[in-house]
Amino acid sequence: MKTKERIILASLDLFNEKGERNISTNHIATHLNMSPGNLYYHFRNKNDIIYEIFKNYELMVNMYLRIPNDRDIQVEDLIAYLDAVFSGLWAYRFLHRDLEHLLASDEKLRLDYSQFTLRCLESIKEIILTMEECGIYSPVTNTQRESKALNTWLIVTNWMTFLKTVHGDDADNLVNQDAIKHGVYLILDYLLPHVRPEKASALEVLQDKYCFDNIMPKPISHQ
Amino acid sequence: MKTKERIILASLDLFNEKGERNISTNHIATHLNMSPGNLYYHFRNKNDIIYEIFKNYELMVNMYLRIPNDRDIQVEDLIAYLDAVFSGLWAYRFLHRDLEHLLASDEKLRLDYSQFTLRCLESIKEIILTMEECGIYSPVTNTQRESKALNTWLIVTNWMTFLKTVHGDDADNLVNQDAIKHGVYLILDYLLPHVRPEKASALEVLQDKYCFDNIMPKPISHQ
Repeated sequence: MKTKERIILASLDLFNEKGERNISTNHIATHLNMSPGNLYYHFRNKNDIIYEIFKNYELMVNMYLRIPNDRDIQVEDLIAYLDAVFSGLWAYRFLHRDLEHLLASDEKLRLDYSQFTLRCLESIKEIILTMEECGIYSPVTNTQRESKALNTWLIVTNWMTFLKTVHGDDADNLVNQDAIKHGVYLILDYLLPHVRPEKASALEVLQDKYCFDNIMPKPISHQ
Repeated sequence: MKTKERIILASLDLFNEKGERNISTNHIATHLNMSPGNLYYHFRNKNDIIYEIFKNYELMVNMYLRIPNDRDIQVEDLIAYLDAVFSGLWAYRFLHRDLEHLLASDEKLRLDYSQFTLRCLESIKEIILTMEECGIYSPVTNTQRESKALNTWLIVTNWMTFLKTVHGDDADNLVNQDAIKHGVYLILDYLLPHVRPEKASALEVLQDKYCFDNIMPKPISHQ
């Protein structure tokens, strides 16, 4: 593996495990048994590493959201899309856990992330339209399709941060991959009523695999 | 008006207008023609002011989410709930615009906000259950009710930050009260399929008033 790739993979691991704010370029170099000078030969600073990780993430999401062009789309594809998206969210969790802070510190990332968001929304709308054309989804208006894309995006991108907020100091233990995958269940709760009845029961069976109990804390008391 | 209340109202205005990070206690004192010493007599530091504002916000939301106990709940109540919640979001927009940062800087706020979130989710579930009992909503399982409460919360609390992210440098002009209120439209897109058919058409008419065009930027290009 090339040095540049090793730096990116090690940084992603460290950011995910310890939080991006707690990791310096020196930590990354030490972790890789590398001199800081060698690291700086490949990346000018931490923002450059984060930007490169974001570009990898963007490539992966673009691939996930691709519509098959050689066959009709199936109910199983919808599950595959959602599963892949939440797996990607987990693999790059540091990006979404502290997004506001990352965007505030890098203008290039801020502009790119905004365009990435808008393109993802277009992709989600195209997936919904294709599902309508393939007889999975009941036809909706363009405004309704836009609402569904927006709501899906809001739920997907904020589910992990929400779990972190409600779990507080226990977040490191409790916000695990199962908890993240429960997001698939949530999205399907939203999309299912629009799936044609003859397709819905197959989807409900698949949805049940994403229902994880006890992922939410109980309130201490009602004030 | 008491000095303490004047400080809270002026701080809320300044935080909303200029962003909490850009406002110091000195700015607040100057704005009120008050000595810093007088301000410190009422609040030890900025975190104490923010915490007091949050407590006001919490009281307001608790009031909004109350279920009428002297009559059945109506379709119009659902609109009133959502309108009030998004108005409150706008009135206290600095809280949600930079929540991660605020929670990171104050442990008491972090604990209280987590409990506030969990209580709100319980209230939303109770509203949904009451709507089922009053024949507005089709009956759902407890897990489905929980999903609906969670998704509603995720959409409501993240809509404004999302708009800010996609609008970038134009956010100050474009993320206005109309754009925020479009959130009511989004939530109703989610809830409408579960409203009984005989009630749904009245709700659709009300929903249309919350559909604002051109609140989303267009992507620059498809890469």
